[in-house]
Amino acid sequence: MEKTDRVRTAAMAELAWPEVRDAIAGGYGVAVAVGATEQHGPHLPLNTDVVLPFDVLMRVAERHRVLVAPPIAYGYKSRPLSGGGQGFPGTTSLRARTLMDTLEDIVVEFMRQGFRQIMVMNWHYENAGVLYEAIDLALERRRDISNARVVLVENPFPVFDAPTMEVLFPHGFPGWDVEHASVLETSLMLALYPERVLVDRIRDDAALRHPPYDVLPGPEDFVPRSGVLSRATEGSAEKGHLVLRLLVEHITEIWETEFAR
Amino acid sequence: MEKTDRVRTAAMAELAWPEVRDAIAGGYGVAVAVGATEQHGPHLPLNTDVVLPFDVLMRVAERHRVLVAPPIAYGYKSRPLSGGGQGFPGTTSLRARTLMDTLEDIVVEFMRQGFRQIMVMNWHYENAGVLYEAIDLALERRRDISNARVVLVENPFPVFDAPTMEVLFPHGFPGWDVEHASVLETSLMLALYPERVLVDRIRDDAALRHPPYDVLPGPEDFVPRSGVLSRATEGSAEKGHLVLRLLVEHITEIWETEFAR
Amino acid sequence: MEKTDRVRTAAMAELAWPEVRDAIAGGYGVAVAVGATEQHGPHLPLNTDVVLPFDVLMRVAERHRVLVAPPIAYGYKSRPLSGGGQGFPGTTSLRARTLMDTLEDIVVEFMRQGFRQIMVMNWHYENAGVLYEAIDLALERRRDISNARVVLVENPFPVFDAPTMEVLFPHGFPGWDVEHASVLETSLMLALYPERVLVDRIRDDAALRHPPYDVLPGPEDFVPRSGVLSRATEGSAEKGHLVLRLLVEHITEIWETEFAR
Amino acid sequence: MEKTDRVRTAAMAELAWPEVRDAIAGGYGVAVAVGATEQHGPHLPLNTDVVLPFDVLMRVAERHRVLVAPPIAYGYKSRPLSGGGQGFPGTTSLRARTLMDTLEDIVVEFMRQGFRQIMVMNWHYENAGVLYEAIDLALERRRDISNARVVLVENPFPVFDAPTMEVLFPHGFPGWDVEHASVLETSLMLALYPERVLVDRIRDDAALRHPPYDVLPGPEDFVPRSGVLSRATEGSAEKGHLVLRLLVEHITEIWETEFAR
Amino acid sequence: MEKTDRVRTAAMAELAWPEVRDAIAGGYGVAVAVGATEQHGPHLPLNTDVVLPFDVLMRVAERHRVLVAPPIAYGYKSRPLSGGGQGFPGTTSLRARTLMDTLEDIVVEFMRQGFRQIMVMNWHYENAGVLYEAIDLALERRRDISNARVVLVENPFPVFDAPTMEVLFPHGFPGWDVEHASVLETSLMLALYPERVLVDRIRDDAALRHPPYDVLPGPEDFVPRSGVLSRATEGSAEKGHLVLRLLVEHITEIWETEFAR
Amino acid sequence: MEKTDRVRTAAMAELAWPEVRDAIAGGYGVAVAVGATEQHGPHLPLNTDVVLPFDVLMRVAERHRVLVAPPIAYGYKSRPLSGGGQGFPGTTSLRARTLMDTLEDIVVEFMRQGFRQIMVMNWHYENAGVLYEAIDLALERRRDISNARVVLVENPFPVFDAPTMEVLFPHGFPGWDVEHASVLETSLMLALYPERVLVDRIRDDAALRHPPYDVLPGPEDFVPRSGVLSRATEGSAEKGHLVLRLLVEHITEIWETEFAR
Repeated sequence: MEKTDRVRTAAMAELAWPEVRDAIAGGYGVAVAVGATEQHGPHLPLNTDVVLPFDVLMRVAERHRVLVAPPIAYGYKSRPLSGGGQGFPGTTSLRARTLMDTLEDIVVEFMRQGFRQIMVMNWHYENAGVLYEAIDLALERRRDISNARVVLVENPFPVFDAPTMEVLFPHGFPGWDVEHASVLETSLMLALYPERVLVDRIRDDAALRHPPYDVLPGPEDFVPRSGVLSRATEGSAEKGHLVLRLLVEHITEIWETEFAR
Repeated sequence: MEKTDRVRTAAMAELAWPEVRDAIAGGYGVAVAVGATEQHGPHLPLNTDVVLPFDVLMRVAERHRVLVAPPIAYGYKSRPLSGGGQGFPGTTSLRARTLMDTLEDIVVEFMRQGFRQIMVMNWHYENAGVLYEAIDLALERRRDISNARVVLVENPFPVFDAPTMEVLFPHGFPGWDVEHASVLETSLMLALYPERVLVDRIRDDAALRHPPYDVLPGPEDFVPRSGVLSRATEGSAEKGHLVLRLLVEHITEIWETEFAR
Repeated sequence: MEKTDRVRTAAMAELAWPEVRDAIAGGYGVAVAVGATEQHGPHLPLNTDVVLPFDVLMRVAERHRVLVAPPIAYGYKSRPLSGGGQGFPGTTSLRARTLMDTLEDIVVEFMRQGFRQIMVMNWHYENAGVLYEAIDLALERRRDISNARVVLVENPFPVFDAPTMEVLFPHGFPGWDVEHASVLETSLMLALYPERVLVDRIRDDAALRHPPYDVLPGPEDFVPRSGVLSRATEGSAEKGHLVLRLLVEHITEIWETEFAR
Repeated sequence: MEKTDRVRTAAMAELAWPEVRDAIAGGYGVAVAVGATEQHGPHLPLNTDVVLPFDVLMRVAERHRVLVAPPIAYGYKSRPLSGGGQGFPGTTSLRARTLMDTLEDIVVEFMRQGFRQIMVMNWHYENAGVLYEAIDLALERRRDISNARVVLVENPFPVFDAPTMEVLFPHGFPGWDVEHASVLETSLMLALYPERVLVDRIRDDAALRHPPYDVLPGPEDFVPRSGVLSRATEGSAEKGHLVLRLLVEHITEIWETEFAR
Repeated sequence: MEKTDRVRTAAMAELAWPEVRDAIAGGYGVAVAVGATEQHGPHLPLNTDVVLPFDVLMRVAERHRVLVAPPIAYGYKSRPLSGGGQGFPGTTSLRARTLMDTLEDIVVEFMRQGFRQIMVMNWHYENAGVLYEAIDLALERRRDISNARVVLVENPFPVFDAPTMEVLFPHGFPGWDVEHASVLETSLMLALYPERVLVDRIRDDAALRHPPYDVLPGPEDFVPRSGVLSRATEGSAEKGHLVLRLLVEHITEIWETEFAR
Repeated sequence: MEKTDRVRTAAMAELAWPEVRDAIAGGYGVAVAVGATEQHGPHLPLNTDVVLPFDVLMRVAERHRVLVAPPIAYGYKSRPLSGGGQGFPGTTSLRARTLMDTLEDIVVEFMRQGFRQIMVMNWHYENAGVLYEAIDLALERRRDISNARVVLVENPFPVFDAPTMEVLFPHGFPGWDVEHASVLETSLMLALYPERVLVDRIRDDAALRHPPYDVLPGPEDFVPRSGVLSRATEGSAEKGHLVLRLLVEHITEIWETEFAR
């Protein structure tokens, strides 16, 4: 493989530093996925929130000059109504300020290296609320760099059109917050990593209660026993390929809009 | 006014400490509003996000045993796409961790005093992402108190039914994020504090762009010049009274469900 | 009311952002009161330390170009020898660093908006020790702004002359630290908000011991059972009006000396 | 020297650990001085605020079972009106939270070792406001230890009686805040370490303005050029011996009152 | 593959939560690698410090009941004398306290899930100094869990015997601090991931000066231009296999000694 | 003693501020020792790690223009394998971030005063890992000062040549980590402060186990009962004088190399 190909197709982590230097000199930007190590039902692996955004970004990188940095693999705490909460073995989370500090440091480092086009793409629902602040503080720390620009994608999914929604959720859309270990994630994993899905364990589930507010400590009836928050059985590889394509198009378009003018 | 009446009708800040002591002994809980000091267009005051949730809570307190604590008047930074951003004079914000520490301390203090039923009601859209963590850390700090329960209402609005939505948004619902200084807030202020609304300055507005992601530093075309993010002119005192009633019912029901069983 | 009048007479929280913009352009400064939510004996409300400095500042604002920002309503912990300590229901306090961060953020925000004349006026005795640092750190954070000036009034009271002292404390001055819920505060509340004072509960009190040092955890005999640290019964509306006038003159003179040259 | 004598007369820093172990087993408490590295006029050394409280504690230790720990030699920032401010070479200060963390850690460590009688004695005026919080947080961190007791002496001086005041300040007492590098400190250093005082450089001085509030950044006219805030020339070894005796009696009495019952 | 096999052979990130639950119930411990995203010369990828300890742990996991958690992929800052410093594009580092907070949180989470045998294995030289504190604070935070035990391997390499050293470093051992991107790492990567090594770019290098102390800001002559600190050309796949075997034996033995008694 | 002599021979703490001002104007640098308050066996005082580096620096100051600042007397926690751990009475330690903040503040203050040549000399083994970060953050905080230079000596000892090693460790060198309260420190204290060494209590000791990794909580068999980690009985005043001379030469040479060009 030639050097140029490596920069275009390999993850940043796989590159040697002169390749990064040359990429920056050549106008490359950088993107980082923010995920979580979190239960995803009895059938999906703990790193579902890490591999999915990373893989989407790697596909965006095939079309644009962007290096994909190592994902942030540990995220903010799981909440009962959107991820089952902190009661599941395997769920390994950071405090909010630890995640903020991590992202702040990484963005500052991207800027120091010379990147001026930075994308932060989140997948884990609970992370969303603290990423903006981390980037804001990073920009404050490097106020001396005036031409850097950071795009933050808190929620990776595009607005699907009605026919697509009909295909994806033939029985109705239950809401983004319960799309945890359910149709979309199950489908995407079946499309990308079928061998990592414990297919015979897929099941639908839901909490006994799912109110529009939180209670702490998390009540038991807010938590589905399986960790699945909705209809995982409706996932399929076909849906996964569809969603993946739309996701990649969506993120690609964001990159083009903001950085490739 | 008799003592009992005072506890039922006055804000906690207006009480003397023996009244609080007696209220706690009598099974009272406590509620705190989390707001912001933030531009709300050319027609609404900076404290819109403070007085609205406080007033809702005071009405809930008329029906249930709950003291309403002094609101948190400074909130997290305004973001361009949901509040116009930090560029407006008057908008005075805290860093995320300052707000988290504030709420953590206050919840810890409520627990120390003996409150076991605590409600945190947020109004400012940008605060939502960090309040859960603050409460979680407060409960961790007082792990020795096992019977306290905190309800967090990140988004105060109930799901309005279709006829109500038709009344409120006859030209379509633009989305919660742009309901800033627009129909609902303008209506509520007109219903509650008409004398504080600069009626002749009400205007509709919108950012030139309103994408489903953020960019930092905030681009100018994400920010409406007036600070109004949607259709403020469609606000009315009538709508305000309607929304206020539904809000109070909604929060009251939450209190009853979680605390008054 | 005309626009100009609003800016001169309304609290900053009541203004719309263009009014703040115009005030800054017109050379207005800003003042913020730092108070506490703290027991003030059986007769005074928990927000005594908030409303008093706020009201003083509002009166200063009648004479000078200054906006009065929303007060900081939660303060540092109450100490037994100056506020009765943290044992009273209703007393709701912040950790020192939370208060520092809050003030630091607010001062930074005032500077960002364009204010160059900033006053921080404290009322709660225990806050005094940490406010200077907060302002100092704010100025360090915005070292790029060189022409801002912050006045910090840790202790709001002027030096009363001997005849005034004789009037206020005919039986002798017990010391500032025990002037908690006692002569001055009772008098000021009787003058300003007589309806909020539970007059029939006013009583004198004192701790069994009041040594010139602290002990932690706070010993019981350092705490008066009522929360009153001295002679509340000597308060009167007349004294309140006198003290209020002197306070307003004092703070006004500070503003003039430092900002209106 | 016998072992028992060492424990009674040597600083804790000079002991070997089994001596500390035995002292704790024998009911010893511990005391720590909190000072500063700060300009003290043209005639006194930078460590004036460190050696004076340390020496007082060592004299207290001659009479009671108390080990004197290494003093905290760096303190909080100097302020113009009480220490000349941060503009003097040699003044080397900590941020408030660094000092708080330091004292918190040290108190926690004393408790872990088994000390149950702890005295914190401050000398540097500007430190006073943050020490209470540090101890409070230390006690919160070790909530599992219920029988520890910490005495905090923020201001080391006793109330001198009128004849003593007449001796010390024949021309009137200028106030504690300007007693920096002036009568008392000059006298004490002349009594204790005459060879460290640059006698021929002693001079009186004062700031051009000394108002009852602060301004930041510190105005030049708040700062005496010499760093002396009052009448250093009135210091004498005789006064130093007198003050030292009264100081030691005062602190000794506090120790007896709180710990030696 | 059977369930039991999955737990034994798959990374923890690949498991579904019930598998983790069962593993904990079955006495499994957990191990986490701490690495860095850092330049490793012109021939090795940025993630060298991540994949190597992770792969070693995965081999240990083949023999003992241990789950291998997602590695910490971002580490503390590179220092000129041990990693070339922060001047290389691609090197993306955390502040020390961010790394500490991250590890503290993760260890706390392992404990919460029920793990009682925890290993932290570091590879990045500069991380070593802060990991102990992170674990110590984690144990303090969960003082209520008394039977957890954490092994910290700051430096992963065993003491090689003389014949091995002769094989590995026939021209003499240059020291662990300069074994960056040099013999051992080059060899291990050649053994494990030959396709990721840019073989034709391997070269020896050294800083012009390599003193036994640091200077900040890092002087240019402390930094080798290539990022290689010693003799990379002496690396070979054979040496890599040898070192890998010894490393795995070493870490396995530690696990057995501390956890498998 | 003349003024010039004072600056050359006295500790910075003993100087008056105009002397520091003149020294800075005359091109003086500053050095600070970082120590610990920590058990050093049954025969050495708790401040061994403080007085030794301070005394070395004072000797360096006899030859070069450097002021020796007050040492940092409290250090990071003792670890079982290098200092006996936190179980010994007398050992009084800071959290890592407290020590980092302390050094960061002090370096920032040196820079503010005008020092441009700064040396940080550590003695306590466990401190080493966090000092670099503190200095790095100090330089980031004062990025506006471009010509300051900080030398960090984490490990004070030079590489002794073989004959010296033979003299110092006739029975073999046990390793730097166990050189705690053993040959070198005992010798140095015998040379410098023989009266502070409890000679009749000197004994050799060692932990039952001393593996190349850590375990937390620290196992009992990692800790020698006496606190001595190796052969204290082999210490002698003669060795102390030898080591002292070599140490002073080593540090002096560093100063000359980096600052006296």
